[in-house]
Amino acid sequence: MPLTHEAKGVFPIAPTPFLDNGEIDYQSIDRMVAFYLECGSTGLTVLGQLGEAPKLEFSESLDVARRVIERAGQLPVVVGVSAPGFASMRALTQEVMGLGAAGVMIAPPNTLRTDDQVFNYYHQAIEAIGSDVPFVIQDYPLTFSVQMAPAVIRRIVNELPSCVMLKHEDWPGLEKISTLRQYERDATMRPISILCGNNGLFLDYELERGADGANTGYSFPDMLCDIVRMKADGQVEAAHDLFDAHLPLLRYEQQPGVGLAVRKYVMMRRGIISYAAQRRPASPMSGRAQGEVDNLLRRLARHDPRARVAAHP
Amino acid sequence: MPLTHEAKGVFPIAPTPFLDNGEIDYQSIDRMVAFYLECGSTGLTVLGQLGEAPKLEFSESLDVARRVIERAGQLPVVVGVSAPGFASMRALTQEVMGLGAAGVMIAPPNTLRTDDQVFNYYHQAIEAIGSDVPFVIQDYPLTFSVQMAPAVIRRIVNELPSCVMLKHEDWPGLEKISTLRQYERDATMRPISILCGNNGLFLDYELERGADGANTGYSFPDMLCDIVRMKADGQVEAAHDLFDAHLPLLRYEQQPGVGLAVRKYVMMRRGIISYAAQRRPASPMSGRAQGEVDNLLRRLARHDPRARVAAHP
Amino acid sequence: MPLTHEAKGVFPIAPTPFLDNGEIDYQSIDRMVAFYLECGSTGLTVLGQLGEAPKLEFSESLDVARRVIERAGQLPVVVGVSAPGFASMRALTQEVMGLGAAGVMIAPPNTLRTDDQVFNYYHQAIEAIGSDVPFVIQDYPLTFSVQMAPAVIRRIVNELPSCVMLKHEDWPGLEKISTLRQYERDATMRPISILCGNNGLFLDYELERGADGANTGYSFPDMLCDIVRMKADGQVEAAHDLFDAHLPLLRYEQQPGVGLAVRKYVMMRRGIISYAAQRRPASPMSGRAQGEVDNLLRRLARHDPRARVAAHP
Amino acid sequence: MPLTHEAKGVFPIAPTPFLDNGEIDYQSIDRMVAFYLECGSTGLTVLGQLGEAPKLEFSESLDVARRVIERAGQLPVVVGVSAPGFASMRALTQEVMGLGAAGVMIAPPNTLRTDDQVFNYYHQAIEAIGSDVPFVIQDYPLTFSVQMAPAVIRRIVNELPSCVMLKHEDWPGLEKISTLRQYERDATMRPISILCGNNGLFLDYELERGADGANTGYSFPDMLCDIVRMKADGQVEAAHDLFDAHLPLLRYEQQPGVGLAVRKYVMMRRGIISYAAQRRPASPMSGRAQGEVDNLLRRLARHDPRARVAAHP
Repeated sequence: MPLTHEAKGVFPIAPTPFLDNGEIDYQSIDRMVAFYLECGSTGLTVLGQLGEAPKLEFSESLDVARRVIERAGQLPVVVGVSAPGFASMRALTQEVMGLGAAGVMIAPPNTLRTDDQVFNYYHQAIEAIGSDVPFVIQDYPLTFSVQMAPAVIRRIVNELPSCVMLKHEDWPGLEKISTLRQYERDATMRPISILCGNNGLFLDYELERGADGANTGYSFPDMLCDIVRMKADGQVEAAHDLFDAHLPLLRYEQQPGVGLAVRKYVMMRRGIISYAAQRRPASPMSGRAQGEVDNLLRRLARHDPRARVAAHP
Repeated sequence: MPLTHEAKGVFPIAPTPFLDNGEIDYQSIDRMVAFYLECGSTGLTVLGQLGEAPKLEFSESLDVARRVIERAGQLPVVVGVSAPGFASMRALTQEVMGLGAAGVMIAPPNTLRTDDQVFNYYHQAIEAIGSDVPFVIQDYPLTFSVQMAPAVIRRIVNELPSCVMLKHEDWPGLEKISTLRQYERDATMRPISILCGNNGLFLDYELERGADGANTGYSFPDMLCDIVRMKADGQVEAAHDLFDAHLPLLRYEQQPGVGLAVRKYVMMRRGIISYAAQRRPASPMSGRAQGEVDNLLRRLARHDPRARVAAHP
Repeated sequence: MPLTHEAKGVFPIAPTPFLDNGEIDYQSIDRMVAFYLECGSTGLTVLGQLGEAPKLEFSESLDVARRVIERAGQLPVVVGVSAPGFASMRALTQEVMGLGAAGVMIAPPNTLRTDDQVFNYYHQAIEAIGSDVPFVIQDYPLTFSVQMAPAVIRRIVNELPSCVMLKHEDWPGLEKISTLRQYERDATMRPISILCGNNGLFLDYELERGADGANTGYSFPDMLCDIVRMKADGQVEAAHDLFDAHLPLLRYEQQPGVGLAVRKYVMMRRGIISYAAQRRPASPMSGRAQGEVDNLLRRLARHDPRARVAAHP
Repeated sequence: MPLTHEAKGVFPIAPTPFLDNGEIDYQSIDRMVAFYLECGSTGLTVLGQLGEAPKLEFSESLDVARRVIERAGQLPVVVGVSAPGFASMRALTQEVMGLGAAGVMIAPPNTLRTDDQVFNYYHQAIEAIGSDVPFVIQDYPLTFSVQMAPAVIRRIVNELPSCVMLKHEDWPGLEKISTLRQYERDATMRPISILCGNNGLFLDYELERGADGANTGYSFPDMLCDIVRMKADGQVEAAHDLFDAHLPLLRYEQQPGVGLAVRKYVMMRRGIISYAAQRRPASPMSGRAQGEVDNLLRRLARHDPRARVAAHP
């Protein structure tokens, strides 16, 4: 069941749950994956930036991937395999594909600048991991400092047949989606799946530009699933209303650095994971920030009852 | 009437209106300043990034500053004087202070990295322009790539008495405001005015953290004035409701690059300026984006009648 | 006598001499230009980074350009016109071309990343200044953080006929010269002049790769002229010997930041200019560094008598 | 035999030799370490940037460290343990210290900007690996984009007692050494060992500024050992003469990207390792560049017979 360019819907980016002592929290993994399944996800991505992948030892990465894949059943699981060298990338790829992953996600190292450098990196990476493994381009300039022009993405797609998906999180990024879809209509690029990241900050208009769904870590993936479904059903205004109700919290969560702490806190408050713990180095959340998130949840609950969470201990 | 550390309220960042042929549109300047005055602004900032300052010739910069200062009456006008060299910065400062400016705003050049480098830059800049000119630090890492730790801002404030205001647009930035206000409570930093930029994206919580108001270019400065007033009056929930209604548009406008085009377009639709024209190099707005902004305005108008703008020709 | 793609030899990058009080030192300009003429320069570049251009007011820039052009006689003078906006770039270009400049040099703003962004910037710049003004691309990633792939340079050359020269200072950069010359042999790029910057740190091999000469500020432009001449005359080993004798000082001078202070100090010691003064913000040279430069000159004088300078007062 | 602040002399940065098929070449490791011992090295560093550390799998890193430590006998071996997360850093540190390493080297992640961020990173890292493990700060802004002010280094040294050495490769960097040594004389910083990197490009003057030696990968570590010894013996002019003879090659090797290929090639030509192979992603050397290196070796051999290498097959 490999990943294909026809993937649609919502692939939540899963955080890696930890116990307060820093060990991996497998019970929370199970609960979290069950939640993703119930709320209508069409896939899952693990071991991305949000998953604190660089803080895991190699064997732990495999343990997390194995557990998620086991629990995800029929759902395709994409595994982040970004690594400073191709030896590690190939090793991790072979292991996780052996465990049943549907594909891998590769982010560019932050030293790349020119179009040729970006293309050559993906070209060499695919030589290393093998051209039979479906892969996802992660296009996230804000974090990686690498800017991929639409023409570079087209070149990667056209010259590397195993490229099936773009995790789109350029900012601003709406015109980029339009340009890529225009390439497809012009038949200068073969079709790919475009799922949007960046916590969904522009998902309301990204879907109208032609995106196939979301691939991000917002703490209400059920809302993301609703939006994609409602847009598909033609309930455009209702989709905007629901999205706008979530926007104050979503924006707060999208902040670099502290964002992960907020996401884990909200997922804990919702009962999806047991602890908000991160591995070090971590950007914790102040008491003041926690109060602000509580207030955002309280106000959101007026519009969406799923935000009515148990009082914080 | 020089700028002091007691400045509060909303200092809109004014764009520079152009005719479609690229000349300065003085009629629109007059209308725009009148609008700022009517809606409750407590000051004004011109010739910032948003004002396309680097695209103006020196004499044009003076012409814009002169016109705005004349029209602003009693309102303090801050002028952006950031320049690659201190000779130009001093020349522009002397001219605009002579024209009646209340102070100047200085952004750091994007080569600064260490704490000492940042402090030394401001130290030398103030030697150049004179320690009798009130100045504003512009702290905007996303655009300038310079990160100022709270301790650096404290050092600038304490060692350079003419520093009276921080234009705060770090992202994330809520904890920074709390830290600076704590410095003041601990009496390790003298008080300064903190006004928030970044299109107001976190103004709802920045005010609760201790900010004195806003200093940004959102196309509804009247809304920013309302929020500051309502928070001061204790209408906390109503302020959040109004802010949240604007957030979808505000977020759209905060996008780097295209943001200026959106702001000028909305200000034109609102009748505040006559043309949405920018000088080159410019980031124009696509027809698709214009449709999205129209939709955002339409939806906003359900909550705020000021968004009910004339149909676009 | 406009600049053409047939330019060869050495175009020194001229510093801007100042009096100790920061005013422009016109007497030193005259002496310096006379020196450049005597030592065999084939052109001159003023108002580059090394010329502290951003620290000059507009009228001063014109004064410097005018004086240099007057004194340079038949020698083509290229003027740096890099500016944050196209209005200033056009204004400065028109003025200096009117004064008799042979062409202009344009550096990219440090926000450009993708190939398209780089090309579009030059495209728009040429629209602004006019396609009849010969221009030089400045390719200096270490300072400008912009990386131009050979294919981008080719695109600029082919689509913008007024591009006649590349100031090559990529690092490493030898392969880039080979690639560009291969484009010319393949007839996929029309011929351009390639002159090398970066203080000449690799000039010994850049000439063998196909460069036409040097365009840099090393304090012994007479040595640069010798090297180019000797290579042209087939005196390859002698050219290497002379270059290697200068390399210890040349390398010291090539340091970012302090390099300008070293260059001005050596030019003062050599009697080419009267003062080593820089405008602020400046990176001065410590007494310790001055002693090191004196030692480098003393050692160089064993091989090149031109380094036998008067004892420092 | 842990590393202390009294370390002096030359700690070569060892490349990781590979067979042409990409496997680790243990025979070459043995020969290389024997060479380092014979030429007068006082220590060794493995698994740095030059050692292609990020391209090794975890078990391979241990294998390389183990082999080098075994062969190095009494010589202290420093191991690079830089990693994206503290879990991996701690794991690698514990393993290599168990194998007999003398200490570890830690480079900052390239996201750090402010003084506090740099200090906090080292503070957290030392919490993770344990305060009983001697560590080396790697200060290499050109590669890591992190600038450490002297005051930050002082703070790390004073607050983290296990910091014993600075691998100094700031550029320019001479004043930084002087400032740090002044701190020691003022007794505001406890003494540390300062060994210089950056391929030794300024070693001639760095030693006179107070550096204790070199810690870099130049392909003639025997020359580096000579320079340090000659300076210590008061043979100042002779040391400069030898250094200057090597400077043309040394400069060529110091180029980013291609530098590793050049170093491995020269070490192969000298018989120190068997293959010049790198793991991918690699920056290979063109035939043209190889000819230039051959020429640099030929010219160097006139002054230093160690450069008289066997003709290339």
